[in-house]
Amino acid sequence: MEATVNLAVSSSLEQPSLPPHAAALPMVTARQRVLAVGLVGPGRVGSALLDQLRTAQPRLARAGLELKLCGVAASRRMWLDADDPELNGRYGGAQTWRPSNLDEFAAHVRGDDGRHALLIDCSASEAVASRYAEWLAQGIHVVTPNKLAGSGSFPRLQAIRAACVSGARFRYEATVCAGLPVVQTLRDLLDTGDELLAVEGMFSGTLAWLCHRHNGSRPFSALVREAHALGYTEPDPRDDLSGLDVARKLVILAREAGWALSLEDVQVQSLVPPELAAMSPEEALENLHLLDRAMAREVASAQTQGSVLRHVASLDAKGHASVRLAMLPASHPFAHSRLTDNIVQFTTHRYRDNPMLVQGPGAGPEVTAAGIFADLLRIAESLEVR
Amino acid sequence: MEATVNLAVSSSLEQPSLPPHAAALPMVTARQRVLAVGLVGPGRVGSALLDQLRTAQPRLARAGLELKLCGVAASRRMWLDADDPELNGRYGGAQTWRPSNLDEFAAHVRGDDGRHALLIDCSASEAVASRYAEWLAQGIHVVTPNKLAGSGSFPRLQAIRAACVSGARFRYEATVCAGLPVVQTLRDLLDTGDELLAVEGMFSGTLAWLCHRHNGSRPFSALVREAHALGYTEPDPRDDLSGLDVARKLVILAREAGWALSLEDVQVQSLVPPELAAMSPEEALENLHLLDRAMAREVASAQTQGSVLRHVASLDAKGHASVRLAMLPASHPFAHSRLTDNIVQFTTHRYRDNPMLVQGPGAGPEVTAAGIFADLLRIAESLEVR
Ligand SMILES: NC(=O)c1ccc[n+]([C@@H]2O[C@H](COP(=O)([O-])OP(=O)(O)OC[C@H]3O[C@@H](n4cnc5c(N)ncnc54)[C@H](OP(=O)(O)O)[C@@H]3O)[C@@H](O)[C@H]2O)c1
Ligand SMILES: NC(=O)c1ccc[n+]([C@@H]2O[C@H](COP(=O)([O-])OP(=O)(O)OC[C@H]3O[C@@H](n4cnc5c(N)ncnc54)[C@H](OP(=O)(O)O)[C@@H]3O)[C@@H](O)[C@H]2O)c1
Repeated sequence: MEATVNLAVSSSLEQPSLPPHAAALPMVTARQRVLAVGLVGPGRVGSALLDQLRTAQPRLARAGLELKLCGVAASRRMWLDADDPELNGRYGGAQTWRPSNLDEFAAHVRGDDGRHALLIDCSASEAVASRYAEWLAQGIHVVTPNKLAGSGSFPRLQAIRAACVSGARFRYEATVCAGLPVVQTLRDLLDTGDELLAVEGMFSGTLAWLCHRHNGSRPFSALVREAHALGYTEPDPRDDLSGLDVARKLVILAREAGWALSLEDVQVQSLVPPELAAMSPEEALENLHLLDRAMAREVASAQTQGSVLRHVASLDAKGHASVRLAMLPASHPFAHSRLTDNIVQFTTHRYRDNPMLVQGPGAGPEVTAAGIFADLLRIAESLEVR
Repeated sequence: MEATVNLAVSSSLEQPSLPPHAAALPMVTARQRVLAVGLVGPGRVGSALLDQLRTAQPRLARAGLELKLCGVAASRRMWLDADDPELNGRYGGAQTWRPSNLDEFAAHVRGDDGRHALLIDCSASEAVASRYAEWLAQGIHVVTPNKLAGSGSFPRLQAIRAACVSGARFRYEATVCAGLPVVQTLRDLLDTGDELLAVEGMFSGTLAWLCHRHNGSRPFSALVREAHALGYTEPDPRDDLSGLDVARKLVILAREAGWALSLEDVQVQSLVPPELAAMSPEEALENLHLLDRAMAREVASAQTQGSVLRHVASLDAKGHASVRLAMLPASHPFAHSRLTDNIVQFTTHRYRDNPMLVQGPGAGPEVTAAGIFADLLRIAESLEVR
């Protein structure tokens, strides 16, 4: 997929930030700050983010934040605003691409005038995640929806956090449930002295949809095929059914809460039987019926108990983490969520009797981009005027 | 009620911020900042907050934030750390009180050394809310769970916001649903360019409990008496039943979204009939049966339709705001919430098909204090080293 990249500022396209007849509250511009931004990974999420940032630029400028969008890097090529001096953030139009080089890219965004700089990684690439520590150490802030740093090698994550002594910040709200306020909410609970007792959630809209729809009347594989056709699944549906992506999100939350948990520590119940897992993607798509026997058994057993089947990730106060099919009573909050919603539920010392719950769509380019954008704004808030 | 005030730092009482065998991620202390804090209103919420702050002080200090708790003011008396030099933040014990004077109090907390200062208003007082603009203009940050500034006179709120040109910040997350992430979540949606289409919510745990329990088998007044005895209601239950407090929260959210809405603009269905409203508090407690006729009719009518009765606040894209009993289908997310939970649901351009939902306990000293504390941390994050 080739994404259209357009960094141009167009104030006439700006959406009104207030309803038409609303009273404009005064816009406060105590400090004018400049933030240079570079985007790695102009795919679905990255392009949506560029649109959102471009639309917001004039409004942010009035609120005291000048966003300088100064480069975009994909896997094989990149564009730097320096290549197009007269296009530089002012007009749309053709852009000059050069071969991608992340070192050059970071150096360009960082600049040499001591400005604040932010790199946004909207790839799903290990190669990019492996650069964060270096960038942060150079004082470049990093924001990402890419789950690999947060859920990958624990020493690497420690190095990333250690690199923040430079004053640069690493934020990744969108790695868990996209635009829903999850990571920051957990952070606030802990930072205000609360104690996490449990996290439970449904972190995959696809699996939520499949579980909701799976009542035994149609084979599970038929639902998977339908979801695949609707674009609800990954190109290879096994990537959803394995539970790996859900486990990554759980690892990110566990580490946020201070647990040195890694993917291997999560007990993951894959819905994909070994025979199916061993096949090529094309073969697998032809053999989805291999899912059916186990899933029919699961749903029958749930129904016998008057329960519903849900795909649930959980972490307890002892650091035990699991991702599995759970049979929940019909009164459970996860039983009633909207078809494709994600849910996260925090049980803490203060929210011990009734947990805190955040729910809603947890994927999609627009809401994921908004989660990244909110991280950017949180960093921008804390920038000193330079 | 006389609250115990203890500003002493006790590092031995500090709760571990990580589970016992968790890997401590490196604590980053790029910048050491000092924040002078004064608390107005050491009531239930204020005392819980003092406890939380005191417990957190050593941890925050290690993370680069020195919180100087330097005064507490109640309605008639106040305590300044200057009065107790040798107690000054180091030991618990007796404190010297002097007559309350908010001017002196603010001047003391602000200091004259250019330090960052924050006043926290945990009263429910108009007299205190009327000072915010002045304090902010002097560069003192203000954080509060007091709904009066946010939902009272609109020109006053405009003056408060205008005063933030000083660089001081005004935050009030805990005014709506206490510690649940509501105001900041709405702010992030709007700041990232999303458009609010509707807010719907249950903003009163008391009314949620009453509606959940009211199935026609017992008169409504019996449930109110039970809730009163359990301490779920205000001392005068009419303060809950009038819907005014819920309307205030809706006004705060509407204004956050840019609407110049005031309390008078909210269509509020009070559950209190005029005869009951006219009585003294004592008389009213004896005559709660006056609630029953209308409520019996409401619940019967809901049951006929196969619906449930819920107390719902709503704001639509045209700025119409209402607080009323609504008959909701059993499949509605508000039908299944836990007994006393608050819920807020945002429908926006990006969350148009499936709204975003935040749910959980929306009152109580501990969680309210945590909401205030999170606001404090947000401000602290953005402080420059002075
Ligand atoms: N989509 C969602 O709903 C969602 C939700 C939450 C989180 N996320 C996460 O957000 C990220 C982006 O998702 P997406 O759906 O936008 O993916 P996508 O459409 O596949 O886009 C990925 C982008 O990354 C670029 N890229 C890959 N390797 C790169 C490298 N080494 N250097 C620079 N650029 C590289 C790709 O460029 P080429 O085309 O040149 O390879 C492409 O532009 C992923 O980490 C995903 O897990 C997505
Ligand atoms: N409790 C909750 O669950 C909750 C949830 C959300 C928001 N809130 C809000 O949080 C605030 C505090 O609630 P609360 O339950 O803690 O109330 P509270 O227990 O009644 O405490 C109120 C405190 O404010 C003080 N006060 C009153 N007028 C004052 C004045 N003019 N100057 C200085 N101090 C004054 C009182 O001192 P005296 O004793 O000397 O009068 C008392 O210490 C209220 O605005 C409430 O609406 C509470």
